[in-house]
Amino acid sequence: MDFSPSLAAREKLEQLKAFLREHVQPAERVYHEQLSQGGGDWRRWRQPAIMEEMKARARAAGLWNLFLPGTAHGGSGLSNADYAPLAEEMGRSFLAPEVCNCNAPDTGNMEVLANYGTPAQQEEWLQPLLDGRIRSAFCMTEPEVASSDATNMRATAVLDGDEIVLNGRKWWSTGLGHPHCRLLIFMGVTDPQADKHQRHSMVLVPIDAPGVEIVRMLPVFGGFDEPSGHGEVVFRDVRVPASNLLLGPGRGFEIAQGRLGPGRIHHCMRALGAAERALELMCQRSIRRVAFGQPLARLGGNVDRIANARIALEQARLLTLKTAWLIDRVGAKHAMSEISQIKVVVPQVACDVIDEAIQMHGGAGVSDDFPLAALYAYARVLRIVDGPDAVHRALVGKLELRKHLPAPFAH
Amino acid sequence: MDFSPSLAAREKLEQLKAFLREHVQPAERVYHEQLSQGGGDWRRWRQPAIMEEMKARARAAGLWNLFLPGTAHGGSGLSNADYAPLAEEMGRSFLAPEVCNCNAPDTGNMEVLANYGTPAQQEEWLQPLLDGRIRSAFCMTEPEVASSDATNMRATAVLDGDEIVLNGRKWWSTGLGHPHCRLLIFMGVTDPQADKHQRHSMVLVPIDAPGVEIVRMLPVFGGFDEPSGHGEVVFRDVRVPASNLLLGPGRGFEIAQGRLGPGRIHHCMRALGAAERALELMCQRSIRRVAFGQPLARLGGNVDRIANARIALEQARLLTLKTAWLIDRVGAKHAMSEISQIKVVVPQVACDVIDEAIQMHGGAGVSDDFPLAALYAYARVLRIVDGPDAVHRALVGKLELRKHLPAPFAH
Amino acid sequence: MDFSPSLAAREKLEQLKAFLREHVQPAERVYHEQLSQGGGDWRRWRQPAIMEEMKARARAAGLWNLFLPGTAHGGSGLSNADYAPLAEEMGRSFLAPEVCNCNAPDTGNMEVLANYGTPAQQEEWLQPLLDGRIRSAFCMTEPEVASSDATNMRATAVLDGDEIVLNGRKWWSTGLGHPHCRLLIFMGVTDPQADKHQRHSMVLVPIDAPGVEIVRMLPVFGGFDEPSGHGEVVFRDVRVPASNLLLGPGRGFEIAQGRLGPGRIHHCMRALGAAERALELMCQRSIRRVAFGQPLARLGGNVDRIANARIALEQARLLTLKTAWLIDRVGAKHAMSEISQIKVVVPQVACDVIDEAIQMHGGAGVSDDFPLAALYAYARVLRIVDGPDAVHRALVGKLELRKHLPAPFAH
Amino acid sequence: MDFSPSLAAREKLEQLKAFLREHVQPAERVYHEQLSQGGGDWRRWRQPAIMEEMKARARAAGLWNLFLPGTAHGGSGLSNADYAPLAEEMGRSFLAPEVCNCNAPDTGNMEVLANYGTPAQQEEWLQPLLDGRIRSAFCMTEPEVASSDATNMRATAVLDGDEIVLNGRKWWSTGLGHPHCRLLIFMGVTDPQADKHQRHSMVLVPIDAPGVEIVRMLPVFGGFDEPSGHGEVVFRDVRVPASNLLLGPGRGFEIAQGRLGPGRIHHCMRALGAAERALELMCQRSIRRVAFGQPLARLGGNVDRIANARIALEQARLLTLKTAWLIDRVGAKHAMSEISQIKVVVPQVACDVIDEAIQMHGGAGVSDDFPLAALYAYARVLRIVDGPDAVHRALVGKLELRKHLPAPFAH
Repeated sequence: MDFSPSLAAREKLEQLKAFLREHVQPAERVYHEQLSQGGGDWRRWRQPAIMEEMKARARAAGLWNLFLPGTAHGGSGLSNADYAPLAEEMGRSFLAPEVCNCNAPDTGNMEVLANYGTPAQQEEWLQPLLDGRIRSAFCMTEPEVASSDATNMRATAVLDGDEIVLNGRKWWSTGLGHPHCRLLIFMGVTDPQADKHQRHSMVLVPIDAPGVEIVRMLPVFGGFDEPSGHGEVVFRDVRVPASNLLLGPGRGFEIAQGRLGPGRIHHCMRALGAAERALELMCQRSIRRVAFGQPLARLGGNVDRIANARIALEQARLLTLKTAWLIDRVGAKHAMSEISQIKVVVPQVACDVIDEAIQMHGGAGVSDDFPLAALYAYARVLRIVDGPDAVHRALVGKLELRKHLPAPFAH
Repeated sequence: MDFSPSLAAREKLEQLKAFLREHVQPAERVYHEQLSQGGGDWRRWRQPAIMEEMKARARAAGLWNLFLPGTAHGGSGLSNADYAPLAEEMGRSFLAPEVCNCNAPDTGNMEVLANYGTPAQQEEWLQPLLDGRIRSAFCMTEPEVASSDATNMRATAVLDGDEIVLNGRKWWSTGLGHPHCRLLIFMGVTDPQADKHQRHSMVLVPIDAPGVEIVRMLPVFGGFDEPSGHGEVVFRDVRVPASNLLLGPGRGFEIAQGRLGPGRIHHCMRALGAAERALELMCQRSIRRVAFGQPLARLGGNVDRIANARIALEQARLLTLKTAWLIDRVGAKHAMSEISQIKVVVPQVACDVIDEAIQMHGGAGVSDDFPLAALYAYARVLRIVDGPDAVHRALVGKLELRKHLPAPFAH
Repeated sequence: MDFSPSLAAREKLEQLKAFLREHVQPAERVYHEQLSQGGGDWRRWRQPAIMEEMKARARAAGLWNLFLPGTAHGGSGLSNADYAPLAEEMGRSFLAPEVCNCNAPDTGNMEVLANYGTPAQQEEWLQPLLDGRIRSAFCMTEPEVASSDATNMRATAVLDGDEIVLNGRKWWSTGLGHPHCRLLIFMGVTDPQADKHQRHSMVLVPIDAPGVEIVRMLPVFGGFDEPSGHGEVVFRDVRVPASNLLLGPGRGFEIAQGRLGPGRIHHCMRALGAAERALELMCQRSIRRVAFGQPLARLGGNVDRIANARIALEQARLLTLKTAWLIDRVGAKHAMSEISQIKVVVPQVACDVIDEAIQMHGGAGVSDDFPLAALYAYARVLRIVDGPDAVHRALVGKLELRKHLPAPFAH
Repeated sequence: MDFSPSLAAREKLEQLKAFLREHVQPAERVYHEQLSQGGGDWRRWRQPAIMEEMKARARAAGLWNLFLPGTAHGGSGLSNADYAPLAEEMGRSFLAPEVCNCNAPDTGNMEVLANYGTPAQQEEWLQPLLDGRIRSAFCMTEPEVASSDATNMRATAVLDGDEIVLNGRKWWSTGLGHPHCRLLIFMGVTDPQADKHQRHSMVLVPIDAPGVEIVRMLPVFGGFDEPSGHGEVVFRDVRVPASNLLLGPGRGFEIAQGRLGPGRIHHCMRALGAAERALELMCQRSIRRVAFGQPLARLGGNVDRIANARIALEQARLLTLKTAWLIDRVGAKHAMSEISQIKVVVPQVACDVIDEAIQMHGGAGVSDDFPLAALYAYARVLRIVDGPDAVHRALVGKLELRKHLPAPFAH
């Protein structure tokens, strides 16, 4: 047993920390000034120039595409367990993931293209994504149905000769509003009669394909996460060549499953970074603010809250790291319970810690004088995306019960 | 013991429900269209015309100033216990409180003027407020200190001949951005040497007095509660006649205490109304949405969550009603523990219920397709305003312990 | 709305408090000395003589059968709402309920006999119970099945001419080990084909009827609640006259339902009394014990824990009182949700408060130097008896959801 | 990073599991029959013969003193991280720790003697303990004061020539009632003027030294943990040779600190084993019991409860393993926060999981038909022994805050 990160991970982490301290934190103010602040009117969103400058600098420094395992396609050669602490560090900043080309959903989309794309697909879409020249979105969730149950999906992807025809309404497609967004990965039903895990296809769709209509950006607790956004989009008889299919018809579910393991590690580690930042702010505030003649840290149960936050974060991080290690060791398929466990517990812990930090800050905590309200909104949404708590909790419970069933019933 | 509301309360409640159903709910869409949506630029905020129409209609219907106890000044004659269910009903709507001239902080300010104002003060400020012609703000909380401890207050209100000179920075002054806001009630230290409950004064300040500078409106989880807003304001050598003092120098704390009892009932009951609305939406969603072949209501612990919400709300409401009844019976001074108890428990219960409702709605819950994210922000802030949870919890604990102390130590 | 108890209730409560202070608390030590301490060997259990003395004194003082509503059969004339605070007061003492002839399950059994018994049944069994000359048990729960679902019941009560033949195994029959126990109320299936609410019958069974075999007493966290006990009993072809049937064949469920409403009020109020006692001990301990130079009350979150306990107890009590009032007003049938709500929340709150009190006492808390460990065991079991939390929570949730169903589905 | 146990640990674990399955579980019934069941009358307690047989078998199999690090004194050569999973496995059984000579407090006492004892002390006391021929107790906690604050200690250990004189009252000395108990390690104040960490001494005391009076055994939720027990003992002018001092006068605190790190790992891992056993029983019950036509596992939130238990246990275990690894790596002194973190979280998680398991079992859960009530009492006490939650939570919070203090204040 060894709980220390690898040497490669430790070195990269130190480098990343220094980079964020020197190049990203000082740029935050300019970034927000350059943001067009268009609110819900996403057509006016612009990419702040300083972001592109930071991206160039990160790439030059070798802090680029760190998420990508292996060394093909310019991957970092880091394992999931190695990358995890880097993702946590990036999660402390709203800008760092994009700066390092490690932001969702592009990471997942790049992994999909790297793992399942044809050379032609990789040349057309993967390379520009790896270069940070374009952005992409993932179009899976639908507004009309409970998308936590994939079999509810209504969108269709029907083969018609050498074309595939897409119809459906999708929402919560993160990144859809980004001025650089060029690629949509669309998921739809190809064969409704097939086994429920072989019905869906994934298709690569240029954002400017005829029939693609972006309806609106969705607010999260009133914020739009400009300039990426979370979009609602309609596909009306969108036709693309059949060669835009990923892996083949009916293999969408298979791809989605493979996509989710590492993605959940990333999400969870970033959420832990966000929560660590909140805990730091909470500690600092509790030391500096005075009431009733004492720093807040000495009043009532405040020190207990800080301790509980620390304990919860340590545990949640260890579980996430172990899950990353398991994925590296035995593959996501054999870490299904753990992957769902972290999906349940980490966003909840992050919400709890950030919420306590908000409370310690009083009114300042819900304002934008501190990043806490924005961090809360970010963490809160994680309890919903990629499957809500309830679905993952149910899976963990089912896998636990299965251990106690006679073999033939344990399916 | 009798848990049924009085006949007067029941009748008024039926009338109010019908009014909201017929005149307010249908107007919500127009109201939001008429809102100028200026975001943080509060100088562009406008009062939607339809609000004034609804106000006129509510006043004509006798659904006006219901919060005001007694019958002087056009008060409703309703007790706190009678008014409580009406406040709950209004809390289900973001518009109803203003429509009925029952919105904070004007309610508290009107009570202060009715109870402590001179006839001249009442003529100048109370009557326009009672008529709904102007709005007001309450300037107490300060950004530089932990305002949960009133003795931290730094703002000053210094007598200088027949004038009083105000200096200080205040924030979270709700209503400050309203286009109709004319009156600020300012609280500052007059005699720093006096007993800690006799240092502060309250002063009536016209919003256009020289030296009053509104700095900005503060966002709450990104939203500005337009067109009322929560403002930060600087007072720089603001001079007003000494006759603008309320009750007299050094009596600010006394007024503040009297103001808070009923105000907390109002806040708590409105929060319960908000939470009831969230629970309704949660139930409806859980019945209509289907996953894994079942309505969500039948999956996992969802029915438990609904039951827990119902149980928590029933309990919190009863405690609030009892506290209202106690204030009516024995006065706020003898209901201090109960007033703090509801301040601790009701906003927390409301947050929990609304949060579960959000979760049941998935992505829709955090968007603005449902009022849930806005309700959450509203309820979350209640854990901070009027004293954060921690201060009230500490008071409840102290009063509980005092029962067990030998008399001389029980102070 | 009126939250004050009736004059009759207030007077009785003062009298009861004085009686317990003067006659019961001082007798506790002797009582425990007189207990034979037979542990699991219930055949050696004896009724302490001092209990009979206290019973005689309570009866003489008019503190007898207070639970019995109405004035027939020597009932107290108190409503459920009136009796509730008296039950709470008795719940503070392990002895008081029996002293006042207000202990479960005799109270429920007496109610059943008073409401549904024939004059002959009342003469034979009700009168001696009302006199406190005999004790009784209620035989419903079964070890082999989940008794939370009444339709699981396996015991049978089959008519055979003018006799009824009973078979089955029952457990958790409280009072079965009492030396004075003479009557068992047995519930079994008479007609398995009938509607699920018309299958069961209730039958009066003398404890010495041939075929009744008491197997053992069951420990609760290692304690046996001597000399009452919770027993396991087998009925093997037990034959009693058909006139021992209560109300008639197939009407057992109907009786059980009627029995449960007031019984749950009693259980919950006693549990609140137990929790209040724990909170008192917790406060006293936290004031007197010193660590790190301060009384425990001043350390960390201890004062928060005390506040949380007070807030939880106030709310739980109000909900219970309201439920009692509802039963008085509209009957248990129309208070089903509330009756289940208190069954969920009160035992849980009591467990939580007692558990915190234990923790504040350190090692002393789990020992028998304080009543806390025994109070905990008592409260913990209440989460199971009369239907576990889960069943009541499910009912509350179902009734809540039903409000939102179209009428024809709302059954 | 590597989350897999070492080869040595894995092999030992397999061997231990097989041994417990083959030799300990089948002996449980006989063990309990051989227990004299004297209840509180500890003078009648006898060591069941079968325990000695199992001990001999375990020793022969090399499953003996596994807890002892290093290889001196017949230690296992296992690190804390290696031993941790073995402790968990033993925690599943009430008998296993003693069978393998790995039970508290003998483990801690043996470590103390091994680390700090003189050769003479080791020969007299360590060897018989290592052989399992005698048992020992640790006399630290006192009834009159809050022992969570070591400076409260009242017992004295005063040097008088070549003797040391002991006075004081101790309680919760586990193992004191064991028929084989021969050695007490007594802690008392030697120099009240010294720095607070250099006041106390530890002294080896034969149980039959004149002046040692065992007053009673203390029940835990009514149970006495026969034949070990938790005792209260008075030391009245007990004189032993000064050579019985451990390490030297004033060095008791230093020893106590060193004793606690590994001891807390052991406690926590055993508690996790206990909780895992409870979760297994919970799963099995939820599969087999049927209500409302479904196994309990399918009803309401039961599957959520199982999932939450699994998630909590995984996290708590990882934190404990990491802490063990830290102790191995950098020593207990540099793992103070982690050691306190596990002390806070593991017993609470264990209590929660066992409590849910009890609830799933209904009445059977609180009886002795299942080990659950006993497991609960065991886990509940762990929240108190070795420092209550509150003390450890406060330490974790303090260490967290210290990270944010300017260096000179960070002490």
